[in-house]
Amino acid sequence: MDSSNSLIGELKLQVRKLEKSDKSKGFIELLQQLTVCDSISEKKFEERFQEINSYGNDHIVCVIEDDQSGKIIATGSVFIERKFIRNCGKVGHIEDVVVDSTARGRQLGKKIIGFLTDHAHSMGCYKVILDCSIENKAFYEKYGFKQKEIQMVKYFS
Amino acid sequence: MDSSNSLIGELKLQVRKLEKSDKSKGFIELLQQLTVCDSISEKKFEERFQEINSYGNDHIVCVIEDDQSGKIIATGSVFIERKFIRNCGKVGHIEDVVVDSTARGRQLGKKIIGFLTDHAHSMGCYKVILDCSIENKAFYEKYGFKQKEIQMVKYFS
Repeated sequence: MDSSNSLIGELKLQVRKLEKSDKSKGFIELLQQLTVCDSISEKKFEERFQEINSYGNDHIVCVIEDDQSGKIIATGSVFIERKFIRNCGKVGHIEDVVVDSTARGRQLGKKIIGFLTDHAHSMGCYKVILDCSIENKAFYEKYGFKQKEIQMVKYFS
Repeated sequence: MDSSNSLIGELKLQVRKLEKSDKSKGFIELLQQLTVCDSISEKKFEERFQEINSYGNDHIVCVIEDDQSGKIIATGSVFIERKFIRNCGKVGHIEDVVVDSTARGRQLGKKIIGFLTDHAHSMGCYKVILDCSIENKAFYEKYGFKQKEIQMVKYFS
């Protein structure tokens, strides 16, 4: 592929919402690069897909599919929290952002973050937040995020 | 009030779910101790109350009402995020915890955190998380939380 074809290939990599058929395109295997994620049965996947879909625009999972390989190579999610504070404001929570290890350096993370941030903005959120490791701080700073608080966690299992 | 009456008074301070009538019991004024929270019209409050209620057990706002004054003196919320990672796991997100400045030292924060954490656990979450300032880290550590990541934020307005 020469450089002009390569550029066209990159431009074709659009962010879209998760579809049921993405399970067979490596969506779960991609998530396994992020954290613990066992293989999931078709039934369990469809149940969870429907549960998330039932929230409509309040919970979006997006993906980028590689036209060449037909594989899902990037994903992320955002859900909209409705609050009483900030004059009944809304906050977007970005979660589970991951780019395939073989597809780094192609600005896919930027596309995912841009899509999720734009969605939160269009839903009327006054801010969008996410938790990340200190190692990923610089990545998000490139896209206008600033460190504010610390995340505390309590595990049940 | 002697000490035994005082003890009975404290035991009566139960955590319960937010009710519509709590707006007239100082619920919004309590939130104003946490952050920016303008006075909210009755209509706007009821709309937001219904929106949150429509999520059922996936989004709970709880309060403690002072039997003596009839005022809301503590609150907090938790919503349940459904994921694909962790074998289609769920995560509880605790938000907007505040105890009235005149009611500190009475273990109300502990009651609120306990209620929200128990709710997340009963909903099958594998963990519960929250973001807080570094100054509040020790408070949450008392209840079994540990610092893990950092929070990044992008404001739209």
